[in-house]
Amino acid sequence: MQNLVSKLTEKNSSKIVLCVLDGLGGLPVDGKTELETAHTPNLDRLVSDASLGLHVPVRRGITPGSGAAHLALFGYDPVHNEIGRGVLEALGLGIELGPSDVAVRGNFATVRYEGDAPVVTDRRAGRLSTEENKRVISRISSAVGEISGVKVSFYPGLEHRFVVVLSFPEHLSEQQALVYDTDPQSEGAAPIIPRGENDGSIRTAEIAAELIDRACEAISDESVANYMLLRGFSVRPDLPTFDQAYRLRAGCVAAYPMYRGVSKLVGMDVLEVSGNSINDEIRTLSDNFREYDFFYLHVKKTDSYGEDGNFRAKVSVIEEFDSLLPEIIELGVDVLAVTGDHSTPAAMKSHSWHPVPLLISSAFCRGGVVEGFSESCCLCGDLGIIEATEIMPLLLAHAGRLRKFGA
Amino acid sequence: MQNLVSKLTEKNSSKIVLCVLDGLGGLPVDGKTELETAHTPNLDRLVSDASLGLHVPVRRGITPGSGAAHLALFGYDPVHNEIGRGVLEALGLGIELGPSDVAVRGNFATVRYEGDAPVVTDRRAGRLSTEENKRVISRISSAVGEISGVKVSFYPGLEHRFVVVLSFPEHLSEQQALVYDTDPQSEGAAPIIPRGENDGSIRTAEIAAELIDRACEAISDESVANYMLLRGFSVRPDLPTFDQAYRLRAGCVAAYPMYRGVSKLVGMDVLEVSGNSINDEIRTLSDNFREYDFFYLHVKKTDSYGEDGNFRAKVSVIEEFDSLLPEIIELGVDVLAVTGDHSTPAAMKSHSWHPVPLLISSAFCRGGVVEGFSESCCLCGDLGIIEATEIMPLLLAHAGRLRKFGA
Repeated sequence: MQNLVSKLTEKNSSKIVLCVLDGLGGLPVDGKTELETAHTPNLDRLVSDASLGLHVPVRRGITPGSGAAHLALFGYDPVHNEIGRGVLEALGLGIELGPSDVAVRGNFATVRYEGDAPVVTDRRAGRLSTEENKRVISRISSAVGEISGVKVSFYPGLEHRFVVVLSFPEHLSEQQALVYDTDPQSEGAAPIIPRGENDGSIRTAEIAAELIDRACEAISDESVANYMLLRGFSVRPDLPTFDQAYRLRAGCVAAYPMYRGVSKLVGMDVLEVSGNSINDEIRTLSDNFREYDFFYLHVKKTDSYGEDGNFRAKVSVIEEFDSLLPEIIELGVDVLAVTGDHSTPAAMKSHSWHPVPLLISSAFCRGGVVEGFSESCCLCGDLGIIEATEIMPLLLAHAGRLRKFGA
Repeated sequence: MQNLVSKLTEKNSSKIVLCVLDGLGGLPVDGKTELETAHTPNLDRLVSDASLGLHVPVRRGITPGSGAAHLALFGYDPVHNEIGRGVLEALGLGIELGPSDVAVRGNFATVRYEGDAPVVTDRRAGRLSTEENKRVISRISSAVGEISGVKVSFYPGLEHRFVVVLSFPEHLSEQQALVYDTDPQSEGAAPIIPRGENDGSIRTAEIAAELIDRACEAISDESVANYMLLRGFSVRPDLPTFDQAYRLRAGCVAAYPMYRGVSKLVGMDVLEVSGNSINDEIRTLSDNFREYDFFYLHVKKTDSYGEDGNFRAKVSVIEEFDSLLPEIIELGVDVLAVTGDHSTPAAMKSHSWHPVPLLISSAFCRGGVVEGFSESCCLCGDLGIIEATEIMPLLLAHAGRLRKFGA
């Protein structure tokens, strides 16, 4: 689909804004979902001339993680463009990855030694404090340094989590990064020695083995975080940029690192946001409005409150977004889309597989038979239930940026 | 899709029941379909909290046979996993096939001889009686026996139909089974000599030629059934089992051989049913409820009456199922699905391509805007129109058996 679209795109002066309310879709509590409960006069006003529908983020029944769901929204099939666990974790910490970098997710762990052989007694090192994590990271950083020309960098995360980046002197293929996890997944077992999943990744495994040796020797005197387990060895996927795929200069307006990271993967410019409120984001949007063709604006807290099971707070975030929507529209948006990356029903306290409400507003909408923006209204919308990867082609079409196919 | 799902499945204690009312979908007579006509208070009561939609068994416009339609329901793309005619016929007779067995569909025929050359005068041997069929089968069985280490078994069917199974000493690939049909498809023509469709199937063709020679010599004195025509040489498709694909211990509750056979192909345990009523099946379900994660329960007569053009009787079977539904629900089902494998409108007296009503009931349904279970209500359901192969992923999701994709 993306290939077809690439061939048909052309440039014009239109402005597209894709607003993603993270985890927007919900499930009913007392008969109404979060979106159905929210008072959203501005969204509702758009509906009479808008196109409504629902999108399936990955596949029917599949609950997506945030990275996969965003790739899909951006038009990249997440099943064929999987983001490795190490890369995802690195994106979440705001680490920039180049094509020569292997990212790995690490846990500090506690081991005891039977002779020379380590046995895992706690896979999370008692969930040590983030402060302690930073202290231990600085110890191993100076102990490991460079291994056979590969620069090794450690980045502390929360509690026992960290990220290692192996910066090779040359570009690495996905295959070359594939090393099996060293986490034995159960306590009382020995950590697994890094092993390449194929001939091409033997060298990566050797570097990993050496870095574990050096690091674990350096922290062997720690009472708790005296070992490390590594998972999710991966390079960033090699994706066409928004400019290559859609001929769009695209700006990302997102306060949280994970979403800024995924945007960077697809070649968006990641714009500075002064805080993490929707207001802060709209200021960034406004300040940069002339410079870009396409903006992705991300609202995080709908998902956070969904995950917390806080139905009422999720409703409030939707209402806050609605109240600020006129400020976005007034900038002179040609195509406005409002949707989520996936559903996060407060009733489930987690991401889910349920299709996600979608609204597209432009001068070229057929309009529908319904009067509001909600899961049930979207069911009767003129878009039907589509795949998330079909959204970008629709936005380009509404923006007059897609030539006729087949002349 | 099935590959993706396999990677994400995990086990839990949930119970899934998939009720298949064969040929459920219909067409209106006097303005209402069979399902719309049926009085189904129990199904209707489920609807307010259920997910509704329709499924397309194979592809739009394609009318499926029962085997293909069931494979699709079970999550296997029937176009890429075609069941050969010989295998289907064998399954219908309740014959168990191993990976070394080539199944072939046979017809008794009548020939006259021009010199040594047979010419077909009746491709169905006057549709001889099933009793006569059995008598002739026993004659050829003792005449043919084993050919070059390949055991040949004959199984009588109805009227002129029978099944031959060639049991090779080693496993056979699909390619190795491919022998062209010997039925010339018209009377007055010579039977076709078995010929392999490729180099790998030459041996199978030779065995077939020898078995025809031996068998037809043995029955050359018969007045009617003095020859045989063979079609649909095939091995059973090599499918991942339900345990491999979904990590489900699956039990089949079906009274008719064909459906028991398809269930066995996908690794279900085929449970004993004492009769062929829905009541008998529910007793089997109840007796085995603790032992399995997933049950497939098959109701045959909706299809049979549809094929007969008996609208009213098809309605009655739906009503009978509805009246017994509470007994199923009371067992403690976590995810209940009610659907058909395809449509069999009484108005058409045959299977058809029309999408099939689908209801999924669980604690995680969004619910919809409709008030009953029927083709037209399902059109407004929150599932939309999906492919049959998407049903299994949805059931697993509703059962909490699918991990998040992409972390």
